[in-house]
Amino acid sequence: MRSRIFAPGPTPIPDEVQAAMAAPLVYHRGPDFPDFIRTVVAKLKPVFPTQDDVLLLASSGSGAMEAAVVNTLSQGDRALVIQAGQFGAKWTAICQAYGVDVDVLDLPWGSAVDSMQVAERLKAHPDTRVVFATHSETSTGVLHDVEALGRVVGETEALLVVDGVSSVIAHPLRTNDWGVDIAVTASQKGLGVPPGVGVVTVSARAWDAMQSATLPKFYLDLNAYRTALEEGRGPATLPMTLMAGMGAALDLVAAEGIENVWARHARHAEAVRQATVALGLSVFPDCPSNVLTAVALPEDVDGLAIMADLRARFGITVGGGLAHLRGHLIRISNLGFVDDLDILTVVSAFEMSLQKMGWSFTPGVGVAAVEKVLSE
Amino acid sequence: MRSRIFAPGPTPIPDEVQAAMAAPLVYHRGPDFPDFIRTVVAKLKPVFPTQDDVLLLASSGSGAMEAAVVNTLSQGDRALVIQAGQFGAKWTAICQAYGVDVDVLDLPWGSAVDSMQVAERLKAHPDTRVVFATHSETSTGVLHDVEALGRVVGETEALLVVDGVSSVIAHPLRTNDWGVDIAVTASQKGLGVPPGVGVVTVSARAWDAMQSATLPKFYLDLNAYRTALEEGRGPATLPMTLMAGMGAALDLVAAEGIENVWARHARHAEAVRQATVALGLSVFPDCPSNVLTAVALPEDVDGLAIMADLRARFGITVGGGLAHLRGHLIRISNLGFVDDLDILTVVSAFEMSLQKMGWSFTPGVGVAAVEKVLSE
Repeated sequence: MRSRIFAPGPTPIPDEVQAAMAAPLVYHRGPDFPDFIRTVVAKLKPVFPTQDDVLLLASSGSGAMEAAVVNTLSQGDRALVIQAGQFGAKWTAICQAYGVDVDVLDLPWGSAVDSMQVAERLKAHPDTRVVFATHSETSTGVLHDVEALGRVVGETEALLVVDGVSSVIAHPLRTNDWGVDIAVTASQKGLGVPPGVGVVTVSARAWDAMQSATLPKFYLDLNAYRTALEEGRGPATLPMTLMAGMGAALDLVAAEGIENVWARHARHAEAVRQATVALGLSVFPDCPSNVLTAVALPEDVDGLAIMADLRARFGITVGGGLAHLRGHLIRISNLGFVDDLDILTVVSAFEMSLQKMGWSFTPGVGVAAVEKVLSE
Repeated sequence: MRSRIFAPGPTPIPDEVQAAMAAPLVYHRGPDFPDFIRTVVAKLKPVFPTQDDVLLLASSGSGAMEAAVVNTLSQGDRALVIQAGQFGAKWTAICQAYGVDVDVLDLPWGSAVDSMQVAERLKAHPDTRVVFATHSETSTGVLHDVEALGRVVGETEALLVVDGVSSVIAHPLRTNDWGVDIAVTASQKGLGVPPGVGVVTVSARAWDAMQSATLPKFYLDLNAYRTALEEGRGPATLPMTLMAGMGAALDLVAAEGIENVWARHARHAEAVRQATVALGLSVFPDCPSNVLTAVALPEDVDGLAIMADLRARFGITVGGGLAHLRGHLIRISNLGFVDDLDILTVVSAFEMSLQKMGWSFTPGVGVAAVEKVLSE
């Protein structure tokens, strides 16, 4: 039985990426390294899209998030965190660990932020230096409107920092058009590469603001990364095989066309949402992202049992509910290198599992809903 | 032409490691993850050897070093750094970035530390909380006597933290016998895995000391890593494919036997040192490690030209001199999964390159010296 991952990261790894990672390693102090890293960086920019500096870190997405905090703030500075799930809460936890004065805009899990609420908070606290947001909150499947946030934050002196860890590739994250000063993502999400590379974009305005930020840092010092990139080296040893995989993944994205990649994610997510409704279930968040679909389960259907069944009978890994939603959600991801028949497969397996759990519906309605969307 | 790496990390990647990294990925929130990570950790302990806790970080060796700093110290604490090359200087730089009061025992590059000097410094500054040392200083090829350091530091209240990034696998680093409280290493050195995994051992005494350490941390918080490991998860997404590669590499080490692995590194390093002398050159450090041989070049032989020639004609990557030694050293590594004929190959290529640069010797004397050691 083949292993099939429909979790919102890590995502399926294409053969081309595997091959690139198995190629002879580019020595990080050798003459091929400058071109190697600059090429990966150049290929990354169109997928946000961004014209800002892009830096590659030897870290997970969490490390890239921490880099955004420690490079923009000083102890006691005020920051606003938009928190509507587990990944929003990570911004808060990082800020608090560093003695930042955090104002948390705490929203119910599954809700998208109203940018007017952010405007009010910023008006109440004009000394806010940074606003931290999450583009796609994968713990609940919600998409926050970063463009609207950018308009609101752009009327203040604050920087806008966005966690695009799961959204990049599934949705555009137009840093320059939307006024995003720092966006972070990671290799194991939309890019279909194993975990281990963090990605950070930095605007000119963010570089300026960093000059007065005094939180301590060394490994995550973005200035060191920028200098090293200019000199064609890594400040520390970078994960070269994973970066080679990223290069191959970005070639696949370029071949498909990033606009088509976004459209594919929209179509696949819509197919899963339609299937969810056809199966008599509901989509959990009020503004669902195209990264994954968080399916709210009825009280008498146990999400953990479904996950175990999908794994045992079909080799399928999906995401479950996190924290207080454990057991109450099934999160089906269509992120990364996923094709139409993959979507059919996971919905069909989900149907079979729901039937086994005693949920009542006309067999095949979920798959029929997928077929309908895919055929349009 | 095949690519051959004789740099002190990254090192050659065995086929078994490549295969393990290409296997289906273990999902970090799935039921297979606890066993997966605990197995890798259990296999790692005998190679130091250590009975202490072992933690795996999504970072390079530099990140693991920073974890040792931020988890053991508070701002203004006093630390002693034994600095005799670029990697010793990294301890100093990290400590300074975090406002630690650093006492630097600055030794000439290429020298090994005399533990009596350390004893004197600790006597002069009894408030020193942590002593930072480098086991194998790869920038110069020197091996510091960690056992002797452990005796001296053990007579004080200070913790002993050792950078074993390049030494582990080549030399034993007996944390418990020698009184090493924290040792760090990384995947791309002796373990023959691509870069991206940092490794940290932590003694019971270090865990105790950490309770009062207040330097800010989140991503590198070792307590979070310990709790996560106990619960069978990663605190952030860990680099699972690289960890799978580590598991395969550790199986190879276990099959050979760690004592035999250490003996092989001793024999190979001795062969390169004998070849160096036979070629009329000298070994740079006063106490060479078995990780690599830093060959001091005569004034009229340009190390950069040799490196370029080795790469162009033979596809060989060796290390060069760093910082003020740039162009003056060739660093030939035998670290990791290297066999007898690999050593013959690199010395033969080095001979041919030296000849091309006009260095005068009887052709074949280097290789003959290698053969002699390998045949003993």
